[in-house]
Amino acid sequence: MLKLYGFAVSNYYNMVKLALLEKGLPFEEVAFFAGKTPEALVVSPCGKVPVLGVEQGYVNETSVILDYIEQTQPGPKLLPTDPFERAQVLAIAKEIELYIELPARACYAEAFFGTQVPEAIKTKAKAELLHGIASLARHATFAPYVAGDTLSVADIYFLYSVTLACGVGKKVFGLDLLAELPGAKALLERLEQNPHVKRIAADKDAAMPQFLAWISSKK
Amino acid sequence: MLKLYGFAVSNYYNMVKLALLEKGLPFEEVAFFAGKTPEALVVSPCGKVPVLGVEQGYVNETSVILDYIEQTQPGPKLLPTDPFERAQVLAIAKEIELYIELPARACYAEAFFGTQVPEAIKTKAKAELLHGIASLARHATFAPYVAGDTLSVADIYFLYSVTLACGVGKKVFGLDLLAELPGAKALLERLEQNPHVKRIAADKDAAMPQFLAWISSKK
Repeated sequence: MLKLYGFAVSNYYNMVKLALLEKGLPFEEVAFFAGKTPEALVVSPCGKVPVLGVEQGYVNETSVILDYIEQTQPGPKLLPTDPFERAQVLAIAKEIELYIELPARACYAEAFFGTQVPEAIKTKAKAELLHGIASLARHATFAPYVAGDTLSVADIYFLYSVTLACGVGKKVFGLDLLAELPGAKALLERLEQNPHVKRIAADKDAAMPQFLAWISSKK
Repeated sequence: MLKLYGFAVSNYYNMVKLALLEKGLPFEEVAFFAGKTPEALVVSPCGKVPVLGVEQGYVNETSVILDYIEQTQPGPKLLPTDPFERAQVLAIAKEIELYIELPARACYAEAFFGTQVPEAIKTKAKAELLHGIASLARHATFAPYVAGDTLSVADIYFLYSVTLACGVGKKVFGLDLLAELPGAKALLERLEQNPHVKRIAADKDAAMPQFLAWISSKK
């Protein structure tokens, strides 16, 4: 059986978990906080989560895990079969990762964990984040899903990246990043009603106190 | 015919160019500097290069372009057909992009274009870069290629990211990032002897004066 290594507070962990649930695949969740112990680095060479445990070994990096699942597992497809349409979905997902999630991530410590982030890093992150949202507005259709009329990996990236980016926008920069994107707001509301998304959110809420205690112990 | 939009100084442009040359595909190079004009944003919604022009429209993001080419075009394969081996190649490529190229990129302005980068950004970049190189040492085999005995997209990312990262390591941090990775050094030397890599390097050298003048005009 597929094993999903990671923890329920990680947004990337939850991307893979949603893909597995949407495809109706059986999987086992393995609590794994990565880090730099020799044992952890065997599972995850970069010390990151999530990791997918499969028969031959470990698969790292969310985008690669999603590709692996799409290639090898049954269930509803999360990528179009037409190569050009597939490329549009993958490009939007990548753009969300690089130009929205990553700059937002540079500010997670301040937005969510009460640790000040240096001004130079925030200035860079804010400019990148605004550019990333503007780019998403150009490339996505929100009709009603990010890249068309069916749920795809672009929606999975959107849900678990843009929500956190909006938290950063609000808490660190006093901005509503989706103010001019009603289609994106409507899609977030729609996705949050998905029963698998609700289950993942409940698991995250349940895991949060332990995670905050762990973050606090590292300060 | 496939059209490759971008410019010869871009390392990501050169990744796609190498893939096209290695596969022996005919393609036309279209000089394109992206940016935020309405015309440019039609080609590249994030204002980035490279872009691949195909019959149906534009394909963005290097990793997505490489996936599209692999899926749709003839010629030597740059990804294994076995899904697990394919995932290892893709994961290493992604790890090079996120954990080596991206932190190095934060320092390109200082390393290559004479513009000071804030200390907080350099401190963050240095820690990430050292971690990225250590992760590559764990995940790559260099036997003799990055992920085994044939050239793959992991080698393409390695060549066009690690070379620049080493420039940042040396010029900004006074470090030889590959000091403890003789296999990586040997592979770089081997790749630099590839005739397609030589052609791309010559095209880059020829384009550099105009590029530096353009960078200088933006300061």
